[in-house]
Amino acid sequence: MTKAITLKTIDKPGVLREITDFIANKGINITYTHLYMESNDYASTYIEFDDVDNVDSLVEDLLKLPEIVAAKTDSSMSEIWGKRIIIIGGGAQVSQVALGAITEADRHNLRGERISIDTLPLVGEEKLSQVIEAVSSLPRVGVLVLAGSIMGGSIVDSIDKLKEDYGIKVISLNMVGSVRDHADLVVTDPVQAGVMAVMTVAKTAKFDIDRVDEVL
Amino acid sequence: MTKAITLKTIDKPGVLREITDFIANKGINITYTHLYMESNDYASTYIEFDDVDNVDSLVEDLLKLPEIVAAKTDSSMSEIWGKRIIIIGGGAQVSQVALGAITEADRHNLRGERISIDTLPLVGEEKLSQVIEAVSSLPRVGVLVLAGSIMGGSIVDSIDKLKEDYGIKVISLNMVGSVRDHADLVVTDPVQAGVMAVMTVAKTAKFDIDRVDEVL
Repeated sequence: MTKAITLKTIDKPGVLREITDFIANKGINITYTHLYMESNDYASTYIEFDDVDNVDSLVEDLLKLPEIVAAKTDSSMSEIWGKRIIIIGGGAQVSQVALGAITEADRHNLRGERISIDTLPLVGEEKLSQVIEAVSSLPRVGVLVLAGSIMGGSIVDSIDKLKEDYGIKVISLNMVGSVRDHADLVVTDPVQAGVMAVMTVAKTAKFDIDRVDEVL
Repeated sequence: MTKAITLKTIDKPGVLREITDFIANKGINITYTHLYMESNDYASTYIEFDDVDNVDSLVEDLLKLPEIVAAKTDSSMSEIWGKRIIIIGGGAQVSQVALGAITEADRHNLRGERISIDTLPLVGEEKLSQVIEAVSSLPRVGVLVLAGSIMGGSIVDSIDKLKEDYGIKVISLNMVGSVRDHADLVVTDPVQAGVMAVMTVAKTAKFDIDRVDEVL
């Protein structure tokens, strides 16, 4: 099981180095970490690793570092938030896709899975291209759903990149524009598109997106 | 403006140390970073900083490190995903709260804001407590919305902690149980609860959650 800790540290250049140095010297491999500024004075650092026998003694040792104000053990992000469906688009469609995905994820999560539905309502070719490329920087993403009425142009390049370089599946609504031809699956009904996004990542669903080659 | 880079690195213990060491030696303060394993061989590292004059020359220098396979500049997470509303709960309510929040965020994002709506459909006292505590480990969270029919017990302790230690606002549906008494705002209609969560963080809305002290 992956183990995780959250540290509250003072904010000054080099603190993350101190922490990563300390952990690397113990031969521990960090599998996921994030750090952000909580305020002008403090930073929050979250660290996951999968090869530590005694996480409590690691926390005790870390608390001896002068930069660390507080430390606690946590469950991993995967255990808490699970796989992520990302929904991007605007207007009436985006909330309907989310409605389908959230309702379906609720059914799977009741049976012990963890699937999160993360939505950014947004329109505009340039903005959408930028956001779709940024999806590749997010951890635990399974499927991206494009929820709009018209998408094409540079958005297509971002989709191709995301699929090829990162293996993220893309579902598109049956809309005007060229994105339809670049998605793994095209779905007309927005609620169904959301449901199918969840089925694609769910362990308790018998659905293989790569075996569907029609517009639904 | 915050600047950001994404690095693709080989996966072995100490790589994050190499990178943070390199950046700290240049006197650059990291304001947000995350690293995760892409596969067995590669890791993805995303880094934000706010005090670099020439980010292109930093990228060039980083590419000289043997551990770094690829590097690109990015927009910051705040610019891409913006502030986050987290919605947690189950059943009919959770997707209705999301519907309200996504529709309202669409209206604000059209006017140049960035607000994301992140939803985890989940039920059960222990699971909810654990997830609500984990909200404090997430960056850029503005409001947590509790979307269910009955919540109390240990969930209340997690809410109090989140509010006190991290200043995150909590909106609860008007449900059975003690969470109502610990939320910043109690709303009966789930769609309205979602709308108000977005209004709480939106710059283009004239709404102050701390000035509302009634059950809507």
